[in-house]
Amino acid sequence: MPVIVECIPNISEGRRPEIVGEIAAAVGASAPTVRVLDVSSDAEHNRSVLTLAGDPAGLTAGVLALFAQTLDVVDLRTHRGEHPRMGAVDVVPFVPIEGVTMAECVALARTVGEQVASRFGVPVYLYEEASANPARRNLEDIRRGEFEGLAAKMATPGWAPDFGPAAPQPSAGASVIGARMPLIAYNINLATDRLEIAKRIAAAVRHSSGGLRFVKAMGVMLEGRGIVQVSMNLTNFEKTPIPRVFEFVRREAARYGVNVLESEVVGLVPQAALMATAEYYLQLEGFTASQVLETKLRQP
Amino acid sequence: MPVIVECIPNISEGRRPEIVGEIAAAVGASAPTVRVLDVSSDAEHNRSVLTLAGDPAGLTAGVLALFAQTLDVVDLRTHRGEHPRMGAVDVVPFVPIEGVTMAECVALARTVGEQVASRFGVPVYLYEEASANPARRNLEDIRRGEFEGLAAKMATPGWAPDFGPAAPQPSAGASVIGARMPLIAYNINLATDRLEIAKRIAAAVRHSSGGLRFVKAMGVMLEGRGIVQVSMNLTNFEKTPIPRVFEFVRREAARYGVNVLESEVVGLVPQAALMATAEYYLQLEGFTASQVLETKLRQP
Repeated sequence: MPVIVECIPNISEGRRPEIVGEIAAAVGASAPTVRVLDVSSDAEHNRSVLTLAGDPAGLTAGVLALFAQTLDVVDLRTHRGEHPRMGAVDVVPFVPIEGVTMAECVALARTVGEQVASRFGVPVYLYEEASANPARRNLEDIRRGEFEGLAAKMATPGWAPDFGPAAPQPSAGASVIGARMPLIAYNINLATDRLEIAKRIAAAVRHSSGGLRFVKAMGVMLEGRGIVQVSMNLTNFEKTPIPRVFEFVRREAARYGVNVLESEVVGLVPQAALMATAEYYLQLEGFTASQVLETKLRQP
Repeated sequence: MPVIVECIPNISEGRRPEIVGEIAAAVGASAPTVRVLDVSSDAEHNRSVLTLAGDPAGLTAGVLALFAQTLDVVDLRTHRGEHPRMGAVDVVPFVPIEGVTMAECVALARTVGEQVASRFGVPVYLYEEASANPARRNLEDIRRGEFEGLAAKMATPGWAPDFGPAAPQPSAGASVIGARMPLIAYNINLATDRLEIAKRIAAAVRHSSGGLRFVKAMGVMLEGRGIVQVSMNLTNFEKTPIPRVFEFVRREAARYGVNVLESEVVGLVPQAALMATAEYYLQLEGFTASQVLETKLRQP
């Protein structure tokens, strides 16, 4: 079984495609085992998201190359954009995909964090699963105040970084590095045009207002189709699986006399999340990933 | 996307492990793109089943190597075993797995069949999807009479082979080569010890007695657990998908006041069958295999 970790660095540059291209090229050239699967830039946000895959050693080299290249060309003192940020390399999550545990991704985040701090003098905060501090698990909490408020925040008790100096790097700020489960973007469309129903169901299902632990949700109108949608991010599909979310929303919708029209997965979904769905509904016992023909064929 | 065809040759030798091992080794050495995933021998049946994976060119070389080696060491005139057979190499199905169509597997079966006939003088019958003759699609129909009745059968109108001589090869009989969908061995356990209920549900769900087109089923007692099982083979999971079978059996069981305890997949299952199950229950729209993270990671 190959070891595959996904890594999704977010960098504070989304308006100069040639600069972003050079950064992606440097990452791709850093190690033979690293692949750059996707690069998405947003000019409004002035931010780019790279999707990398590789083994821990390859990704360590890849992320260090990313920092070296990005720090040369991004200066947060002159950076403007819609999206909150506090670092030139703003956030670097590692995600376990295949043949690797979350604990190993946490260790990888720590190793990379230490090296970033020592090689580039950039303070590093660990987040999500890599954080040992409950007050510093959430990215939003760490990033609050952004680059402009960073020097003051870092001088506050409880906000010394996990690695590196206790003050921002002048042009690159600080970086947030960690480990998390894959996100699944999952939407459920309802056979109604009443937006308030989608909003009430979203409030019922999301964690922040009393719902399921690993669900973020909002109700939106799909204008072109005249229907509403419960639009969600599932942040841990092992602990809050897709079928439980689907059945929850279906039951809430029924309480308003509304049917589920369909659901959709936006972007990528781990095979394990689909397997778990089949197991749930078929009441499958004793099923393992090695029974998936394609998985078996890939084994050496 | 790599091209992967599965091939599951059944040979009439299951009592001499060293002979079977030599045959498997010859197949494995025939082409660098062929992999021998599994070899299972049954002494009662005096038969072995090899599971191969590879591209069409590799599997052509592999199956020809299999014939060359097997014909040297198996003589049906002295072969005895429980399982019906009419060839030293009895049956060779090709199964499309990835990046390949059924039509390409049919073409592969024809190519291999022609070469087997011309190189070894073994008559070849095409079966399942590779058969152009509706009376000769089912393996059981072709094999009826077995090796001992083969010479008489081949002289009967309508039973000339698709390739090769119109009489059995003296020691190797005839071979059946074709293309089919992957089989899924799928069982549903019921919360009752009444065997007649499992038998009635099996009769309701299976094709041969009025049920679903691509289901074979029987009712069996699981002695050790004091429960009964509807034991099935799903022969085309695209046209008769797992969730439809599960819901069918659940409904029939409810008619006797019996609950489904659990279900199980025995052996391998294609990823597409699991995906289709998630799509069915989650009412997923617009989902494609390229959204499975692992599939994306494997793409070059």
